[in-house]
Amino acid sequence: MITVALAKGALLKDSVSRFAKAGLDFSTVLESENRQLMVPSLCGRAKALLVRNGDVPVYVAYGQAQLGVVGFDVLREQQMPVAHLVDLGFGDCHMAVAVKQNSGYLKAIDLPPHCRVASKFTHCARTFFNEIDLPVELVHLTGSVELGPITGMAEAIVDLVASGRTLRDNGLVAIEELFYSTARLVGNPLALRLDRGELQGIVESIRANRPVLPELFC
Amino acid sequence: MITVALAKGALLKDSVSRFAKAGLDFSTVLESENRQLMVPSLCGRAKALLVRNGDVPVYVAYGQAQLGVVGFDVLREQQMPVAHLVDLGFGDCHMAVAVKQNSGYLKAIDLPPHCRVASKFTHCARTFFNEIDLPVELVHLTGSVELGPITGMAEAIVDLVASGRTLRDNGLVAIEELFYSTARLVGNPLALRLDRGELQGIVESIRANRPVLPELFC
Repeated sequence: MITVALAKGALLKDSVSRFAKAGLDFSTVLESENRQLMVPSLCGRAKALLVRNGDVPVYVAYGQAQLGVVGFDVLREQQMPVAHLVDLGFGDCHMAVAVKQNSGYLKAIDLPPHCRVASKFTHCARTFFNEIDLPVELVHLTGSVELGPITGMAEAIVDLVASGRTLRDNGLVAIEELFYSTARLVGNPLALRLDRGELQGIVESIRANRPVLPELFC
Repeated sequence: MITVALAKGALLKDSVSRFAKAGLDFSTVLESENRQLMVPSLCGRAKALLVRNGDVPVYVAYGQAQLGVVGFDVLREQQMPVAHLVDLGFGDCHMAVAVKQNSGYLKAIDLPPHCRVASKFTHCARTFFNEIDLPVELVHLTGSVELGPITGMAEAIVDLVASGRTLRDNGLVAIEELFYSTARLVGNPLALRLDRGELQGIVESIRANRPVLPELFC
């Protein structure tokens, strides 16, 4: 049976809709009264694991799910051994360096050496500051990163920006973009190699955003 | 001005009530319409930072908050340099090793060497399995750890258990306790050393669970 790891939260609705077009209907996970973490598809031929964003690559890498949908930001941060299959095009956002509006910093390289930078994405942040050769002290936070500069703990943050509203509401401004992120379909490399066509059919169908193999439909 | 880091979630209500008895009323943070992350006390003499559980020791260690309330489990996991001041007695739970009810394992040492153990608390788990000299492969998850054994990814989990209902609902059973956890009042060591009595007054009052210095009241 095919198992698909889906991230709870912002990407869920679009993920379910893309899988539905490929013949796997997981719409039960969208029902507000659903409390199950393992949900069978309507046809009973597959099941979805409903997990947190950061856990999708883990379940796919360990082979408990053959496919998964997760943001590129998480894939960049975690570096788990999963195959990147399709850029799904939704869940647009970018990873950015942001500072206080009145800080006077216009580019990341303007930040004072050895200043503190708060982030949930410390691996991405470290890679970026290494590339621009600016030594900074990274402070790992798990949420509300915008409090870092507001409380004076950090000079800057590295965080995901979608509409930019959270930054504006907190008097912050993005000064440099690290990379652009969208939702990705990922797969377990071994499962894909041993696949007899079923996984490939689903991947092709999701890539084309329409049914490719009519017989896949329940 | 005194800044207090409070953890969102299960500990918040009791934390606010203990600070209220010590003369600092942060009840605004409990209002459902509150969206502020930095909330002044009613008397204006202090402010609360409303952050995620895991971020409380960070804000206290970096001195952005002089005091904080957080579970002992988080303190054990993170090992941040904060002073442990008062065991507040609420938020009882314990960190436990749990396995599938039908697994046949009665103690952690029964687990097969090199099996996988899923946890949000990988530092605590590593320390425990090192102590019992059992080599295991730790899989870090960020939520719904009980899915680990259910999907077959892990033989066991290390997780917080309060009522035990989540374990039962998922066909799991706790087989060994690592440690007992309650909410703790923690402080920034330097702030406590430089304190001219104000912090000490609040700490004493919270320890006694009643006003110690009447003049602290707003």
